[in-house]
Amino acid sequence: MKTNNSNNNKPVSDITRSPFVLDAHQGEIIRALRQRQRISRPDIVNITGWSRAKTAIEINRLLEMGLIKEIGEGPSEGGRRPRLLSLNDELGYLVGVDIGATSIDVALADFAGRILDHQSEPSDVRLPPEQVLGRCVEILLEMLEKHGTSPQCVLGVGVGVPGPVEFSKGILVSPPLMPNWEGYSIRSYFQQTVQSALIVVDNDVNIMANGELRVGEGRGVDHFIFVKIGTGIGAGIVSNGRIHRGASGSAGDIGHISVDKNGPVCRCGNIGCLEAVAAGPAIAEAAQKAVLAGTSPVLARIFQERNGELHTEDVGAAIREGDRTAVEIVQFCGKVIGETLASLVNFFNPSYIFVGGGVTHLGDQLLLSIRQAVLKRSLPLATRHLVIKYSSLGSKAGIMGAIYMAQDQLFWVMN
Amino acid sequence: MKTNNSNNNKPVSDITRSPFVLDAHQGEIIRALRQRQRISRPDIVNITGWSRAKTAIEINRLLEMGLIKEIGEGPSEGGRRPRLLSLNDELGYLVGVDIGATSIDVALADFAGRILDHQSEPSDVRLPPEQVLGRCVEILLEMLEKHGTSPQCVLGVGVGVPGPVEFSKGILVSPPLMPNWEGYSIRSYFQQTVQSALIVVDNDVNIMANGELRVGEGRGVDHFIFVKIGTGIGAGIVSNGRIHRGASGSAGDIGHISVDKNGPVCRCGNIGCLEAVAAGPAIAEAAQKAVLAGTSPVLARIFQERNGELHTEDVGAAIREGDRTAVEIVQFCGKVIGETLASLVNFFNPSYIFVGGGVTHLGDQLLLSIRQAVLKRSLPLATRHLVIKYSSLGSKAGIMGAIYMAQDQLFWVMN
Repeated sequence: MKTNNSNNNKPVSDITRSPFVLDAHQGEIIRALRQRQRISRPDIVNITGWSRAKTAIEINRLLEMGLIKEIGEGPSEGGRRPRLLSLNDELGYLVGVDIGATSIDVALADFAGRILDHQSEPSDVRLPPEQVLGRCVEILLEMLEKHGTSPQCVLGVGVGVPGPVEFSKGILVSPPLMPNWEGYSIRSYFQQTVQSALIVVDNDVNIMANGELRVGEGRGVDHFIFVKIGTGIGAGIVSNGRIHRGASGSAGDIGHISVDKNGPVCRCGNIGCLEAVAAGPAIAEAAQKAVLAGTSPVLARIFQERNGELHTEDVGAAIREGDRTAVEIVQFCGKVIGETLASLVNFFNPSYIFVGGGVTHLGDQLLLSIRQAVLKRSLPLATRHLVIKYSSLGSKAGIMGAIYMAQDQLFWVMN
Repeated sequence: MKTNNSNNNKPVSDITRSPFVLDAHQGEIIRALRQRQRISRPDIVNITGWSRAKTAIEINRLLEMGLIKEIGEGPSEGGRRPRLLSLNDELGYLVGVDIGATSIDVALADFAGRILDHQSEPSDVRLPPEQVLGRCVEILLEMLEKHGTSPQCVLGVGVGVPGPVEFSKGILVSPPLMPNWEGYSIRSYFQQTVQSALIVVDNDVNIMANGELRVGEGRGVDHFIFVKIGTGIGAGIVSNGRIHRGASGSAGDIGHISVDKNGPVCRCGNIGCLEAVAAGPAIAEAAQKAVLAGTSPVLARIFQERNGELHTEDVGAAIREGDRTAVEIVQFCGKVIGETLASLVNFFNPSYIFVGGGVTHLGDQLLLSIRQAVLKRSLPLATRHLVIKYSSLGSKAGIMGAIYMAQDQLFWVMN
C-alpha cells in the first residue's frame, strides 16, 4: 500500500497547534511551492495532473488564505507570460538557531526561508543552558528590532543542539558534551520570548541533513548520510526522503563506534571510539606530537607562532604549505573515518555522503582519504552510484536546516 | 510538512496497473483492515474520527466494490453486537515464493493473506534460473489445481531471492551466489504463467523484514533491523515504518562488512568479511577443526555418525549435549556478529533486532552472545529500549513477507 502508516517522527506540530492546516490538495500545491520557491499555474497543472479549472480554484483558495502570493511573471512558453506564485513571505518570520559545541548561530528568515540576517559568535555549550540560550534570545531580539518587527511576528523557530534529542519533547537526552542540559526544555525557554511561535529542537547533524535535503544537493535524494566532523563525529540520516531519527532519537551517533580496541580513551569513557581517534581534537593532538617528535618543521613553526598551541585548522595550513606529516595525519583520520563509513555504506546504501563540520577546511586530502577507504571496503553495488563530497552549504547547512525545520512544522496536511 | 515527498521505493504497482485504486478515505479503511484483519464499524469511527454517517457511506462503497465483506459479529460493548468487516478473501489468490540458497518455498494464500497451502523443498540457487523457477511454477500449478482454481485467479505474486534486487525492475544485480541470474527477469518468467497477476521481486531478507512488519512482532514498530544468519548474513531494514532498500537495492548487505583484516578469504574475494568469519559455513568449519584438534568428543562422535561430515545444525546438537567447544564456537560467532551490529545500532538506533535464518536452531547461546556484544559496544541511549530476539515467525518470515508484499502491490491509494 502506498500510504505511510508509520506514526513516528511525531511532529511537534499537530492539527490543533499548526497555524496552517491544509487539505491534501492544498498540501500538494504548497509542497511544490516549497520545493521550487516559485512556480507558475501551468507548472502546478503538470505536477498535479488536475484540470486548469480545478487548479485555478485550489490556487484561489490559497491566495484567499494569504498563504501564497503572486510575484510577477515567468518566461513565456509560447503564449502569455505566466504569473508566478510563491509562499507569502510577509506572513511572518522564521528563526533558525544552531548551537554548536563552541559557537552559536542565529538567523532571521522570511516565511519563504530566505535569510534576512545571520549572526555567528563563539560560545561554550558547557555553560548553563540559560546563559547560552539567553544570548541567542538577545541576538534574536536585536535582529527583530533592526528589521522593525517584534517577537509576535515570529511563526516558527528551529533549534539545533550538539547532542541526542528526544524530538517529540524537544529535550536533550544524556548529552555527553552538555550535562547541564539533560532534560532541560529548550522549547519552553524560547517560548517565553516568542510566545505564539511553534518551536522545534533537533540534533545539530539532523538539522544539517535537513538543510541538504531542503536547499542543498540532497534535494530530491531519497537516501543520504550527512557526516559532521568537528569536535566530535556524527551523522544525519535520510531514508526515503525523511530524516531517520531512530527509536530514541540517537540515530547517527557514529562518533562512538569502536574502531580501535587499543585506542585512546574517549570522553564517553570507552576505548577507541571513532571520534577519539579521528575527530578535530585527535588531529590537533597528532600535530602536537609531531612537533614534539620533530617530524614537522612547518607545524613546529606554527606552534611557536601560536605560543605553544596548535589547532585543527593549523594542520590545514601546514598541508597548504606542503608539509608531509600534516598530510599523513589527515590521511590517517580520513582512512579511519572512511573504514567506518564503508560498513555503513554496505548497511545503508546511500547515494550521497555529504561531509560537513569544522574539519572541512582541511581541504581535499581528508575527502580523498575517506573516499579511498570507502571504495576499498564497500561492496561494488553499494558504491556504484555513491558520491562522497563536502556539503555545498558549508557552514550554513545547520542554520538553513533549522530554518526549514521551523517552516516544516507550520503546515499540517490532512490526508 | 507531514506529507511524504519521496519518490523512491518505486512500487511495482502504478495507477494504471494496480487493480484496486482507492481514494484517500477508502485507503484509510483498507489500511486499518489490513493491519487488524477484522474490524467493526465503531473501530473505524475511532480510527478515522469520521462521523458514523460518513463511515457508513465509505464502508458501503467498499462493500459495493467487493473489496471488503461482512464476517459475522464481534463482542458487544454494551449495545448491539457490532458486525465485523474483513478484506474479501474470495477476490482472488496471493502467492508467495521464497527462494533460498538451498531451498524453495511456495505458498498459496487467500486475498486476506491467510496461507491455504505451503510447500518447501531443497533446491540449489546455483542452477539456471529456468530450472529453479520452473520447479516453483510446477508446485504452484499443483496447488492451484488442488484448490480447484487456476492461474487466472492469482492477483499477486511476491518473490524473495538471495541477492541484491533492483526493486523497480524486479531483477537481480550482481548476485554473488547466483551469477546465472544476473539481469534475469524473474517477473517475466512468472508472468507467463500468472498472466494477470502483479509480480514483485525483492531480496530474501527484505521479505523477511516485511513479514515481521506485517504479521510479526514488527507490527507498528517504526525502526527495526531483521538479521538473517544462514549461509550468508544479511539485514532487512525498516525506517519510519517502511522497508529501506537503499540507492541500488543493496541496503542491508552487512555480510561483507570487514571484521578481521587477518581473517579468512570470503567468497566475494575480500578478506575477513563478517559472513566469512561468522555465518553457517564458518561455524561448520570451526566444528571440523575442533574434531581434528581433538577438543570436542561430542562433535567427533557426530562427525563419525555422519560419515565425515559436519553441518551447522550438528553444532546445535552438540551444545544441547553440553559440549563446551561447541558453545565456544557459537559464542565467538555471536560476539563477532554482535560487535558489527553494535556499530549499526549506534548508527540506526532501532528498537528491535529480529534474528532469523538457518542458524536460529543453534539455540539461545547465539542470541546471548550477540546481545552481550551489542550492549557492551553500543551507546546506552541507543540500547535503552532495544530488544534483540529471534523472529517470532521462524522459518515462515520469508514466505509471509512475500505474500504480504504481493498484497501491498495491489492497492494504489491516491492522495
